[in-house]
Amino acid sequence: MKSLVLERKDELALRDFPEIDHIEERIGPRDVRVKLHTVGICGSDVHYYTHGRIGPFVVNAPMILGHEASGTVIEVGDQVQTLAVGDRVCMEPGIPDPNSKATRLGMYNVDPAVRFWATPPVHGILRPVCVHPEAFTFKLPDNVSFAEAAMVEPLAVGVHASTKARVRPGDIGVVLGAGPIGLVTALSALASGCAQVYVTDLADKKLEIAGSLSPAITPVNISTENVGERVKRDTEGWGADLVFEATGSPRAAAQVFESLAPGGCVVMIGGQSDPIQYDAGAAMVREARVENIFRYAYVFPRCVAMLASGGIDVKPLITNTFEFEDSVHAFEVAATAPPAEVKMQILLPQ
Amino acid sequence: MKSLVLERKDELALRDFPEIDHIEERIGPRDVRVKLHTVGICGSDVHYYTHGRIGPFVVNAPMILGHEASGTVIEVGDQVQTLAVGDRVCMEPGIPDPNSKATRLGMYNVDPAVRFWATPPVHGILRPVCVHPEAFTFKLPDNVSFAEAAMVEPLAVGVHASTKARVRPGDIGVVLGAGPIGLVTALSALASGCAQVYVTDLADKKLEIAGSLSPAITPVNISTENVGERVKRDTEGWGADLVFEATGSPRAAAQVFESLAPGGCVVMIGGQSDPIQYDAGAAMVREARVENIFRYAYVFPRCVAMLASGGIDVKPLITNTFEFEDSVHAFEVAATAPPAEVKMQILLPQ
Amino acid sequence: MKSLVLERKDELALRDFPEIDHIEERIGPRDVRVKLHTVGICGSDVHYYTHGRIGPFVVNAPMILGHEASGTVIEVGDQVQTLAVGDRVCMEPGIPDPNSKATRLGMYNVDPAVRFWATPPVHGILRPVCVHPEAFTFKLPDNVSFAEAAMVEPLAVGVHASTKARVRPGDIGVVLGAGPIGLVTALSALASGCAQVYVTDLADKKLEIAGSLSPAITPVNISTENVGERVKRDTEGWGADLVFEATGSPRAAAQVFESLAPGGCVVMIGGQSDPIQYDAGAAMVREARVENIFRYAYVFPRCVAMLASGGIDVKPLITNTFEFEDSVHAFEVAATAPPAEVKMQILLPQ
Amino acid sequence: MKSLVLERKDELALRDFPEIDHIEERIGPRDVRVKLHTVGICGSDVHYYTHGRIGPFVVNAPMILGHEASGTVIEVGDQVQTLAVGDRVCMEPGIPDPNSKATRLGMYNVDPAVRFWATPPVHGILRPVCVHPEAFTFKLPDNVSFAEAAMVEPLAVGVHASTKARVRPGDIGVVLGAGPIGLVTALSALASGCAQVYVTDLADKKLEIAGSLSPAITPVNISTENVGERVKRDTEGWGADLVFEATGSPRAAAQVFESLAPGGCVVMIGGQSDPIQYDAGAAMVREARVENIFRYAYVFPRCVAMLASGGIDVKPLITNTFEFEDSVHAFEVAATAPPAEVKMQILLPQ
Repeated sequence: MKSLVLERKDELALRDFPEIDHIEERIGPRDVRVKLHTVGICGSDVHYYTHGRIGPFVVNAPMILGHEASGTVIEVGDQVQTLAVGDRVCMEPGIPDPNSKATRLGMYNVDPAVRFWATPPVHGILRPVCVHPEAFTFKLPDNVSFAEAAMVEPLAVGVHASTKARVRPGDIGVVLGAGPIGLVTALSALASGCAQVYVTDLADKKLEIAGSLSPAITPVNISTENVGERVKRDTEGWGADLVFEATGSPRAAAQVFESLAPGGCVVMIGGQSDPIQYDAGAAMVREARVENIFRYAYVFPRCVAMLASGGIDVKPLITNTFEFEDSVHAFEVAATAPPAEVKMQILLPQ
Repeated sequence: MKSLVLERKDELALRDFPEIDHIEERIGPRDVRVKLHTVGICGSDVHYYTHGRIGPFVVNAPMILGHEASGTVIEVGDQVQTLAVGDRVCMEPGIPDPNSKATRLGMYNVDPAVRFWATPPVHGILRPVCVHPEAFTFKLPDNVSFAEAAMVEPLAVGVHASTKARVRPGDIGVVLGAGPIGLVTALSALASGCAQVYVTDLADKKLEIAGSLSPAITPVNISTENVGERVKRDTEGWGADLVFEATGSPRAAAQVFESLAPGGCVVMIGGQSDPIQYDAGAAMVREARVENIFRYAYVFPRCVAMLASGGIDVKPLITNTFEFEDSVHAFEVAATAPPAEVKMQILLPQ
Repeated sequence: MKSLVLERKDELALRDFPEIDHIEERIGPRDVRVKLHTVGICGSDVHYYTHGRIGPFVVNAPMILGHEASGTVIEVGDQVQTLAVGDRVCMEPGIPDPNSKATRLGMYNVDPAVRFWATPPVHGILRPVCVHPEAFTFKLPDNVSFAEAAMVEPLAVGVHASTKARVRPGDIGVVLGAGPIGLVTALSALASGCAQVYVTDLADKKLEIAGSLSPAITPVNISTENVGERVKRDTEGWGADLVFEATGSPRAAAQVFESLAPGGCVVMIGGQSDPIQYDAGAAMVREARVENIFRYAYVFPRCVAMLASGGIDVKPLITNTFEFEDSVHAFEVAATAPPAEVKMQILLPQ
Repeated sequence: MKSLVLERKDELALRDFPEIDHIEERIGPRDVRVKLHTVGICGSDVHYYTHGRIGPFVVNAPMILGHEASGTVIEVGDQVQTLAVGDRVCMEPGIPDPNSKATRLGMYNVDPAVRFWATPPVHGILRPVCVHPEAFTFKLPDNVSFAEAAMVEPLAVGVHASTKARVRPGDIGVVLGAGPIGLVTALSALASGCAQVYVTDLADKKLEIAGSLSPAITPVNISTENVGERVKRDTEGWGADLVFEATGSPRAAAQVFESLAPGGCVVMIGGQSDPIQYDAGAAMVREARVENIFRYAYVFPRCVAMLASGGIDVKPLITNTFEFEDSVHAFEVAATAPPAEVKMQILLPQ
């Protein structure tokens, strides 16, 4: 029963981790026990590995990594009603305090007390088994694979971004950044009604992948082309209805209004460690609305439904799969940020 | 230079109609003159033919039919800026008073003074040429055909309905009615984020067409299956997020809440000549939102963009095409309501 | 330790009710125990008294009445964080299942599993003491009296209705019905931005009270004046932006669109036991939005804030106060529906 | 027939200005001619006077100042329907191109072709008479004075800001800046449902005026008190639902999220000449919505309605009135930015 443990910055080990077994020995009346099947590697997992921290969250003690997961229910609590042993599921990794003010106001994702997998001091799920609340565990239809289901977590960011953007059919979108989050955002924006989405990046390889996802995606390499000028040229000077910032780069974030049409909406997705430049004048003359999103809320079942119906296809984003025993190697690969990889996943032993 | 003239109820003629040439002799500074290419036959055209009236609108004098049109710009007014001779275009058939209170409030479609093609006493465009305001004439990209462009008008109803519904990605929708408006609504709802759409009707042939449009469309013949029960069975008792009423049948309208989930939205599209039954109790326990729509506003360019990008494909809905010289026959066919026909179109001589 | 018990239809008793003490002996870790101070008499309490049922909710066993309550915290559970012994509070009477789908989607009020005070088989709070979850118990500022706090429950309906209506500053509103709910709705609509609110009723005495609440309230007796005509005359034919149906009368509900302006919103508040007539044509030409509300969600603290700031003043609505020992008599009075009474309250012994 | 002419930076003259008479000799069929009565002095008028420019708008030729105006209709065009000679009116100073894309999309205020009074090269209305479109001229009820009506233009900014904010009853608001725009915003926010509004400034005199407007306004002098800390202390650490930035100060703008609650909204009103600092991290953890507003749209009649009903009282903001012959002096006073003045107005000779 090994887990993938980040011992400290730069040091990973696949080893027994008895503490977690102890923590999760008990199962509450509304919990389920899940045998993990597939876990995706997120940029945040890699960042903890290479930097030992993300902002205020510091790895001060050995921590199990991983928060993008699918698996199979192997035990249910007394009061569980919607799940049964044998159900294939995916799991929302953040558990809010049900009594917090944010939760009580219907915004559980901004509850400061959220306990989120693989965010110190909460352990992740690159381990054989976990216990999780029924309310944050979602049954999969037969036609959604474990691999797709482990993509629901990143997809949820894109779907939440598109939901907050209030996409209207026929909108023109711009997604800044062709990483995994940028790509799920582009797919979500298209599935939500965008007629066309421009995706920008500096890496041709990433843009090639972006362009291959849909004929309605137009890749723009911003090292050679100004996206604002391009969009305006294509729209008779009007601009894009929606701009999604998915790079986390201060420079990209400073230019979000350049592509934006009057009355348009900017969605800030990428995290920023420092204040960014905000062109308030450009925002004003457009009456821009800016939505700042934090993870997601209420969208996991929506993502599962879109995967099941074919409305969104994430399979092309899964570019590499590793066995659990090779997971330290998988992280070493991921840490090199290979441009041809979008999402790497790890298969737990079944 | 013949026009298709509804002389009176049940009597159509393809004949010269000099009055219309006289009316449109002048072209205003912000008008364009358009040579018509393709005109779709709408249920309202047929209804004027077979009944001589629609509600308060009575055909008291010969009137040219047709309001779903595409064509080519052949002359532009002095101040026209966005269009040029030779541009392929489609046209929005209702022209509001730009100074009306409704227009000034951004709701031009509910302006009671709207002049709408083929609505007495305003003539339609089953004629060679028309004059139209630049502001309601929309340029087509090369990859949108005249036939598709003549579908923009009915499609606009579906896109407007989906816009008002505020579809969120992953929603489950129900469309009552598999006629042309029901089908464009189903396509619009899917393109706006619905994961799945149930389409109901009594005619198997229509449902067969509906089901052929997308794997995400589930046809339900309500003569043999209760749609509310079906949807609830498929959703663990929860229901559909959105119900679109596109039949105009009082009986269907009386049951809109049966399929609806808590917090869901009903969009009333089909016209009703008399008050309908409204299950206020069922609406309340769900906190249902009901949007009643009237035609459309601001959506023609959005529809053109969706056709151009492939986000919506209306080509399978065009089931028959007639030459202009056969247009009286085309209306005779349409008047029989053949179940295998969705949209019949007429080609003007070029 | 007596309670006001509805033994059966038409029979009330002020008597010991040991079962309730037994039920509430235990206090959960996130519960508080509250000594009741003031309880308002609601139309639903009276209806259970005079009819023994409301729709599907039937009084099959003795039930304590009352759900509009304020009091003082006398004990707190282990994990309670926001309340302390001695805090003056008001309480939201409906407790949803925190794990229900509706609750998890942020719509706890439409959770079918809600347990609501004085709705069979759940007991109300016309009794000395109750146990309630911290999450649905709200601390009062010093300048909000117990009497005002016991008005928060009905006020919440009006505030929820105004919130759902999305009132914009300068809107013209119409409230159908000058009962307690109509009046709190009128006050809420004004406090939410309405420039003017017409309140209708058949009883002059009620309209007199309505008119006395604010110079921006215009009473209309519909036995002598058509409210739709009146509003249109006052608005140059345009109509009201918002119509709130607060009568529960099928006849009133059938006329909600007559006063409504294009683009306006109707809020259905009053419960209806049977389907009502819905003028779909009138709704469509206006593109009316209809919001059907069910109780309220997330608004208790907002109501307390409005009372504290003076934004809403409910004191004029409290027209009569009875001692607890006279509570059977109070209900007998209430059952006669005296037109000069808006809200009658009962004071528990302290 | 003199006008108040800004000859160039720092030089004002009250003199004949024949060009304007020539320009406005003709009256269009949907125009009205208005005899001006009261004109307010706006900060932008003063800024053109003292700086000769605002951003890209440079005073290169003599220009008449003034854009906050009320007056009396003295002539109407042939097709005018809603106004008659003798009507008392106020006027919206920006006239969009009715055929622009922005106007056609219902966002006329962001039309780049808007012609706005006293914005070079368009003349203002500190002159005896002007010609204006009926559609942007609004009749006053008898109980709204010319002085109040000349306040509608600045008030419209506050009402538009509150409308975009989508205030809900019981919200807590913060307005940064106690100048005229800050104060109309505070009044609008309260009238739109805020339970309480904190108003910040550095000048005690301005804060004293703010605090005198309503018991629900809490003045905070940010030279001695941190508004974020204050609001959080008063709200158990939660923060304000709404923050309105009405200073135009980069430093204030950089701190808008400090007071903001999770799920809250920031409205950027004050113009900024350079990019500002934006704390993206603070915005994200709150899922802040940021609305950037540009003037206003569709709100003049709403403002008039609120003044007429008493929902908003702007009279206390009118702190000084000058005769037209003293208007140069009035501007000299205004240029000193006296802290006890909120709005200074000029009376045209009648």
